[in-house]
Amino acid sequence: MSGYYGNKMITLIDELSRLPGIGNKTAQRLAFHIISMPQERVQELANSMIEAKVSINHCQRCCTITDTNLCPICQDEKRIQNQIMIVEGSRDMATYEKTQEFKGLYHILHGAISPLMGVGPSDIKIKELLTRLQTENIEEIILATNPNIEGEATAMYISKLVKPLGIKTTRIAHGVPVGTDLEYVDEVTLSRALQGRQEI
Amino acid sequence: MSGYYGNKMITLIDELSRLPGIGNKTAQRLAFHIISMPQERVQELANSMIEAKVSINHCQRCCTITDTNLCPICQDEKRIQNQIMIVEGSRDMATYEKTQEFKGLYHILHGAISPLMGVGPSDIKIKELLTRLQTENIEEIILATNPNIEGEATAMYISKLVKPLGIKTTRIAHGVPVGTDLEYVDEVTLSRALQGRQEI
Repeated sequence: MSGYYGNKMITLIDELSRLPGIGNKTAQRLAFHIISMPQERVQELANSMIEAKVSINHCQRCCTITDTNLCPICQDEKRIQNQIMIVEGSRDMATYEKTQEFKGLYHILHGAISPLMGVGPSDIKIKELLTRLQTENIEEIILATNPNIEGEATAMYISKLVKPLGIKTTRIAHGVPVGTDLEYVDEVTLSRALQGRQEI
Repeated sequence: MSGYYGNKMITLIDELSRLPGIGNKTAQRLAFHIISMPQERVQELANSMIEAKVSINHCQRCCTITDTNLCPICQDEKRIQNQIMIVEGSRDMATYEKTQEFKGLYHILHGAISPLMGVGPSDIKIKELLTRLQTENIEEIILATNPNIEGEATAMYISKLVKPLGIKTTRIAHGVPVGTDLEYVDEVTLSRALQGRQEI
């Protein structure tokens, strides 16, 4: 159907529609927008992709995605240096940063243990975490992996590894999300909320 | 919030979020996908944008977007050469082509007359249409601009211009869309459907 636009346009639509969440219609809309942009802007967009791809690496300390050796958080000496929050991905870190509640450091696993998907402990950044625990003076690790099967399994696995080191290990609280009606909350969450009840 | 990823990533997210329909969250998701792609694939994606932008021009005859002098439809001698369907954009042409009902040629206006948006007759491809009507042996033009104020105004404007030339001028039928319930159809469409009733 897009054959009328010529081969270059078909290639562009095809490339765009391979991106996640971009269907053929959206790809067409984006392609038409791109060819209507000034050429410098198209060049800037294309360059930003290549430059990001080429320059991005993992922070040498926390393994987050960054374009410097150490990410801005690991470089920041004002962060609490003996607390590490362990998350599955760099975006989880960014999400937690938005809360402005956590002042410690992070460690990004880049995944979670999932035997079903063939992801074992050696496929995520657990070795790097253990190296940090041995070289840095860490007093607490906070397990903030996702509250699903893989995230829970990963948290359990890490907590067992860390226990012999005598480092305090905590897990973020499960409970009722703020702002919802109880009737919409599933039973597992409700029972977790009950187990985790705190005196007020 | 994306400051933790470094400047190159911020630039990429920023560039992506300028695209239509791409918000900040989607831009982040796409950016993370792009940096996780093999470098050749990123290069291909970036190249496809630049190549489409550089090579795309307007068909010398029907003004559609294409990367050759004449678009595939204008090159196709099997198309009926004396019928022109006038549409607002190249995508409308592609949409009509999918119906496989129309075997004539197209003319793409690249917009519609809209005094409110500052778009006058000289801003769309009406001059090019008139040139075609003088040089090609056209027997019918079908006005398939959008069924909204701008599209109707454009259709009216063109029909008045073409009338002196003695070329048959038709407008696509307005009426009830196939497959809907009458109760969901607006009154203007219903009254147009009544006016346009045909004997069966």
